[in-house]
Amino acid sequence: MNKRGGDFTLPGEAGQEAWAMELADRWGADAIRDSDGTSLSPALMEQGMTVYSTVCIIRSHNDFIRKHPRTRQQTFLCTAPKVHTGGPLRFVLMDDFFSGQFEVNGGEDSLPFWQVTDRTANLEVPAENWEYLKEEGAVLLKEASPFHAYTVSFLAYRVWEEISMYNHTANRWDSEPLMQLDPSWPEARAYLLDWMEKWLLEHPATGIVRFTSLFYNFVWIWGSDTRRRSLFTDWASYDFTVSPPLLQAFKEHFGYALRAEDFVNKGLYRSTHSVPDRKKRDWMAFVQDQVLDLGRELVALVHRYGKKAYVFYDDSWVGLEPYGERFPEYGFDGIIKCAFSGFEARLCAGVPAPVKELRLHPYLFPVGLGGSPTFSPGGDPAGDARAYWMNIRRALLRQGLDRIGLGGYLSLTRGYPEFVAYIGQLAEEFRRIKALHAQGTPAVKKPRVAVLHAWGRLRSWTLSGHFHENDTHDLMHLLEALSGLPLSVRFLDFEDLEEGALQDADLLLVAGARNSAWSGGSLWTDKAVERVQAWAFGGGTLLGVGHPAALEGYNTLLRLSQVLGVDVDDGRYASHGPWRFEADCPPELMAEGAFVPALPGVRLTDGTTQVLLAKDGLPLLTRHAFGKGQGIYLSGFRYSPGNARLLLRLILPASKDGEETFIPTDPQVDCAWFPAGRALALANAGGLPQHGKVPLEEGTLEYELEPYELKILRL
Amino acid sequence: MNKRGGDFTLPGEAGQEAWAMELADRWGADAIRDSDGTSLSPALMEQGMTVYSTVCIIRSHNDFIRKHPRTRQQTFLCTAPKVHTGGPLRFVLMDDFFSGQFEVNGGEDSLPFWQVTDRTANLEVPAENWEYLKEEGAVLLKEASPFHAYTVSFLAYRVWEEISMYNHTANRWDSEPLMQLDPSWPEARAYLLDWMEKWLLEHPATGIVRFTSLFYNFVWIWGSDTRRRSLFTDWASYDFTVSPPLLQAFKEHFGYALRAEDFVNKGLYRSTHSVPDRKKRDWMAFVQDQVLDLGRELVALVHRYGKKAYVFYDDSWVGLEPYGERFPEYGFDGIIKCAFSGFEARLCAGVPAPVKELRLHPYLFPVGLGGSPTFSPGGDPAGDARAYWMNIRRALLRQGLDRIGLGGYLSLTRGYPEFVAYIGQLAEEFRRIKALHAQGTPAVKKPRVAVLHAWGRLRSWTLSGHFHENDTHDLMHLLEALSGLPLSVRFLDFEDLEEGALQDADLLLVAGARNSAWSGGSLWTDKAVERVQAWAFGGGTLLGVGHPAALEGYNTLLRLSQVLGVDVDDGRYASHGPWRFEADCPPELMAEGAFVPALPGVRLTDGTTQVLLAKDGLPLLTRHAFGKGQGIYLSGFRYSPGNARLLLRLILPASKDGEETFIPTDPQVDCAWFPAGRALALANAGGLPQHGKVPLEEGTLEYELEPYELKILRL
Repeated sequence: MNKRGGDFTLPGEAGQEAWAMELADRWGADAIRDSDGTSLSPALMEQGMTVYSTVCIIRSHNDFIRKHPRTRQQTFLCTAPKVHTGGPLRFVLMDDFFSGQFEVNGGEDSLPFWQVTDRTANLEVPAENWEYLKEEGAVLLKEASPFHAYTVSFLAYRVWEEISMYNHTANRWDSEPLMQLDPSWPEARAYLLDWMEKWLLEHPATGIVRFTSLFYNFVWIWGSDTRRRSLFTDWASYDFTVSPPLLQAFKEHFGYALRAEDFVNKGLYRSTHSVPDRKKRDWMAFVQDQVLDLGRELVALVHRYGKKAYVFYDDSWVGLEPYGERFPEYGFDGIIKCAFSGFEARLCAGVPAPVKELRLHPYLFPVGLGGSPTFSPGGDPAGDARAYWMNIRRALLRQGLDRIGLGGYLSLTRGYPEFVAYIGQLAEEFRRIKALHAQGTPAVKKPRVAVLHAWGRLRSWTLSGHFHENDTHDLMHLLEALSGLPLSVRFLDFEDLEEGALQDADLLLVAGARNSAWSGGSLWTDKAVERVQAWAFGGGTLLGVGHPAALEGYNTLLRLSQVLGVDVDDGRYASHGPWRFEADCPPELMAEGAFVPALPGVRLTDGTTQVLLAKDGLPLLTRHAFGKGQGIYLSGFRYSPGNARLLLRLILPASKDGEETFIPTDPQVDCAWFPAGRALALANAGGLPQHGKVPLEEGTLEYELEPYELKILRL
Repeated sequence: MNKRGGDFTLPGEAGQEAWAMELADRWGADAIRDSDGTSLSPALMEQGMTVYSTVCIIRSHNDFIRKHPRTRQQTFLCTAPKVHTGGPLRFVLMDDFFSGQFEVNGGEDSLPFWQVTDRTANLEVPAENWEYLKEEGAVLLKEASPFHAYTVSFLAYRVWEEISMYNHTANRWDSEPLMQLDPSWPEARAYLLDWMEKWLLEHPATGIVRFTSLFYNFVWIWGSDTRRRSLFTDWASYDFTVSPPLLQAFKEHFGYALRAEDFVNKGLYRSTHSVPDRKKRDWMAFVQDQVLDLGRELVALVHRYGKKAYVFYDDSWVGLEPYGERFPEYGFDGIIKCAFSGFEARLCAGVPAPVKELRLHPYLFPVGLGGSPTFSPGGDPAGDARAYWMNIRRALLRQGLDRIGLGGYLSLTRGYPEFVAYIGQLAEEFRRIKALHAQGTPAVKKPRVAVLHAWGRLRSWTLSGHFHENDTHDLMHLLEALSGLPLSVRFLDFEDLEEGALQDADLLLVAGARNSAWSGGSLWTDKAVERVQAWAFGGGTLLGVGHPAALEGYNTLLRLSQVLGVDVDDGRYASHGPWRFEADCPPELMAEGAFVPALPGVRLTDGTTQVLLAKDGLPLLTRHAFGKGQGIYLSGFRYSPGNARLLLRLILPASKDGEETFIPTDPQVDCAWFPAGRALALANAGGLPQHGKVPLEEGTLEYELEPYELKILRL
């Protein structure tokens, strides 16, 4: 293995044995895996590399499911509203939804959960006033208020496993569409355990069972109209975990029942971006326990056959929660996370699992996740790989992990020699960085950063899915910036706040849009406000971005305006004159390319608030003294090397740590200092050569870096 | 008079008799008035012109007020919040306010109205926990929750009449600052009536007593810091009407008491732009009755002396409400409104008073309202006068009024011959337009427009003050556009809606920001939604602009989304895919220079919504069929000739009236058709010559117009 380098997982592909062996040599692969839709040939399995075998535990059971149709997975759906304009109001339930994905569950175990709602009056329609017409798949409203709008919320089977559905659509697969089995039914659970054991017996060469997550997929509700295929997409939501047996068990456990509205929430569903209510939290905790219960049984079974169990933390991961308190109870030997970005690398690196592995993009597929070409005409897979690696590499310099790998069809890489070469170089860089971490952790600057939001530790280093799915959220950009900065970062929720977690923080980051889980909304109770104000007054730095702590009903929209010295106008200041100000920014704060997006309505609440940056009369960046501490406000944040540097410079004074050591002159260059090994890593994330200086603990180092170069120096 | 033309009021100025007579000839003046700070000399009074004399009834009584200091007018004020960080919390009440304007009223009749509030917990602090330290003008909080924010709301005397304060500041007056008398005190009322009678006896030459409004000024709260002089400015708010006797009388009348918080509202006050609550409406109704009570006594007194009484509807107008139901009870012989804009002309024209007169801008002052030069170096008074007249003239073509005039110092016009000439031309145009209206009303297009907002008829053709004070509000721009369009326009409130007012409307306009009185907010009850949906379904056109009917707590933010086919994202759609669309605009809709401002978050709620205009993926202008009617949505509106034309074209189909008669090819040209007199007015509002066509009932007319020309043709 060593001659190859190691720490690299190669996707296998039947019929590509020779090419696989060549790539294994060039990339230093020490493990080989089968991808979805491929399988490993015996020839490849015999090459002495560790064999990862993919098991997507809830799919490929179509035969069983056909015999036991109730074991298909389900979800609540809510029709589009209809206005009662006279005549009977009739809802054909599937009118709005993709018939390939859903099928109405009109069974007796399902109907009690359905709800018809008057959306104009926010009132449930009594069950005796509506009727389900099974033959027509329709609900007929027998009595309704004129010109009120109504919806029907119902339980539907999901009849096409969503990843299979995606691959058929995006990668034009033509295999049989797969369904997904819900292990909340006893017969399904028994079948699965049995199937798993059989599978283990049949795969003696497999060293590592790589679960494509576990049971429940992230939420992806498709519409009937191709002009609006994606009705609702949420990587971290639990809508796809519902079933009559689980809902029943929940009721027995918690003493209260959940029904359709608790999930569909006026037809808006309950996005991870919104503040969760108690019911949602209870349901999540309940599902997490259920998933753990069967999940650890599967892991134990794998172990019993002398194999290791890794989990791919994507796809059907819901309920698994690697940052949940009970995650170690699974006994997983490793976790694999696919990553485009730095925050995903940190997300993976922070999971308490023995082996942490990144699945890199681009996947060896003709098109990428966004639908643009990769291994097909017009694609630039080497360029894509480098762009993602530049994001990931700066995060890896801060926190190491164990392995990397690729997924997809190896055969597609033929004809892309630049890609093949680049992956070899990238793998080598990965191993050099891993070796650095083996000698000790890299240095961090003094200020201890805490990020506060509704989810806290559970959603460490993430929002809901990939960067491009969250790029309208300031916090996504901040996490990406933080992922590569020399800082210790923790994630707090509002319970942590009550438990005194701020005492270990020098800077508190609250960043999000109004009414979002990220800015906190209704979680900003009086007590929470008190705590943060007391902490800031005692010397803490509050960094607010966007609408931090925004909540209606108080004298200011931002409940922390007293600390920040700013507020955001939601109409309340229509007749109120603004403070006149002059913006005055210390030049060293704005690195090359740094900028702050404007947010309409930002205004000063205090004449002592210093405006550092402004545009068209809108403050963009302000600072406000509050006791021994301060409030810093940024109207928005977008990730870029220059803005990451700006963020670092805003954070450093939070511990009177203005020192410049290990901060290179150019923001495109990241620097990590590993004191135990006295190693200095310098990484150029940009496409231009860099020539600059970095102050060391003693003296200053001049550096020259080629485009994209990683340089490691021993001092 | 006739040789001069008439219908024009000239300001008089002592020592300028000859110049006044020359201007009277050139401008066709038939009346002369004294301005604030000037007085008419006997020489001028004897020229045979009607004499207007200004009476600002509540000021120029400093001697009386000094003897009866409790009769000074008052207001509630609220300090800036302070956080309790340990130690006693002490508020020096005047710290935040302009000491020239206010003085704490710490009297025994005042203190019971004060309130100290914990703004973090939204709770009043019991009176026993705080103390007023009279000597220090401070409130000491004896007990407070750590790290909660507190405010003190108190009653203050206003010690400088605000118009006097403004003139001293802007026009550098150095006369004695005036105070204002509050007639809610019996001794003040008696004194005023007595004073008025004496005044009438002393002014035999006066034909018309021109009240500079009545008793209570619009609200203008100045701060102590010159960097934020204007804390709160609201032309239509009632904060300056409070006094212990009125508050006491209110309690006796309504059976409940109002205190500081009812006015200061968390320190935000209750702007006219926000939805009024019941208490505010009760207070307004009560004040209106009080103002009427004394106001009509004053008018009767004027009549008893054989003079006429006009009211200048500005300055101390609060409580007067020319669109209030009881306005005719005053018995005013005329109303005068100062005007920069078309909407102000319509506002004046619609008042039920025998004579309606416009006071034109610019005033004959060295600087204008905005602080820029007019009759001083750098000023262009002729250009200003023309710009305002272009706004006003198009409105006058739609609804006539009786007189125009100027205000200020005549002497300042010397050295501005262009201005003198232009006013002569303008006066002539005014008289030509007035003559047109004398023959009959101009034709309007079929669709009957109703504008719905919280204030309805009471705030017909206005928001709160001048255009430039309201220019962030879409409705301001829409009113300005509507003021010159050939349409009948009514203003409805939500009670009118319940009373069936929509049956007389073809198009309903709802335009405003979220949480504003204009978009309606909490007034959008289920019943209101039902009514509008039923009416639209039956054939009505709903035109929504900005955040029409926005209210949180329902499935859509816009409660009328079912009609409009759009909603605005307030964060609720963070995980929801948008409808894909292609924008397709009939070319005739967008007049030259027409544009629609974007509003972030606008999205389709229905695949059948037609997008006519879009920018960067945001729909700007949409149309959605709803039964026999439709919803039209505009994400914003800014007044311009092109946009006024766009608005007209959007409105016309509301009555299947797409006909083009009397609509000139160019949007800079306004056309009014007076069928009784068979007169066609064509007015070019722009600085370029226009050559175009206007379709008539029979045939088409070609026109050529000089820049700014008004042409009247007999057909």
